[in-house]
Amino acid sequence: MSFQEHYPDVLAHCYGCGVLNKHGHRIKSYWAGEESVCYFTPEPYHIAVPGYVYGGLLASLIDCHGTGTAAAAAYRAEGRSMTSLPSLRFLTASLHVDYLKPTPLGVILEIRGKVKELKGRKVVVEEWIAANGVITVRGEVVAVQVPEKMLDDLEV
Amino acid sequence: MSFQEHYPDVLAHCYGCGVLNKHGHRIKSYWAGEESVCYFTPEPYHIAVPGYVYGGLLASLIDCHGTGTAAAAAYRAEGRSMTSLPSLRFLTASLHVDYLKPTPLGVILEIRGKVKELKGRKVVVEEWIAANGVITVRGEVVAVQVPEKMLDDLEV
Repeated sequence: MSFQEHYPDVLAHCYGCGVLNKHGHRIKSYWAGEESVCYFTPEPYHIAVPGYVYGGLLASLIDCHGTGTAAAAAYRAEGRSMTSLPSLRFLTASLHVDYLKPTPLGVILEIRGKVKELKGRKVVVEEWIAANGVITVRGEVVAVQVPEKMLDDLEV
Repeated sequence: MSFQEHYPDVLAHCYGCGVLNKHGHRIKSYWAGEESVCYFTPEPYHIAVPGYVYGGLLASLIDCHGTGTAAAAAYRAEGRSMTSLPSLRFLTASLHVDYLKPTPLGVILEIRGKVKELKGRKVVVEEWIAANGVITVRGEVVAVQVPEKMLDDLEV
């Protein structure tokens, strides 16, 4: 089961990764050893210029795969499963994306993540996106754990 | 007329800003003195957690408003209109977004940009997004002019 499928319903509406968002990307991320991985095939209309993927979508993939990886890493650090309580969920504090070369449209993209730092409520995830085995994008997400107060408000 | 409405058809397919992309955001950016401005109302499904805007969309707005501002600034620096030839179009080399606080869903967002640096083929645009008059996001786009070779290939 993917990281995102463990999110409680109230936190499963995200346009990028919420399993309940019918309009969204519904990305699915998994552990692959010490790295996390997600596969995603952009739609034909996720276009920048003809033949290439829209940069905003690539940023969105970096964003949601990053927060998903941050959550999974936080559970792992506590030695418990993602289905256990209390829920740990992360929001993006900052996002950085370097577009190394144009990303071709029409192929499956591989998004990979690696935890660079996990300290208190903050997790830094470095990421990269490959198309046809070539890395086209590198990024970094600084994720912070959603405050309990905000989670409580959402539950109401 | 907005910056984006001046793009030639071959460059008007972008999911974020292309006027020909029926599925996309079709943002429209304008000069407002020394700053550029764009107004955008997210859809109800552009959600992160209930009540707040999805960060990937905010990154997309920063991205496309930034490249649009870069193009407009480049024409302005050459003292010619955006309808004149040759076409100048910019791609994002890097994107940075700081999420200062959650951005409320259901209100018009104001995206503002300011040229920080314009040198050769590179333009750096600093940006911010306000909701209800409160700045919730700050970002920066490093835009580079699309190589003539790539434009020529697209025209074919």
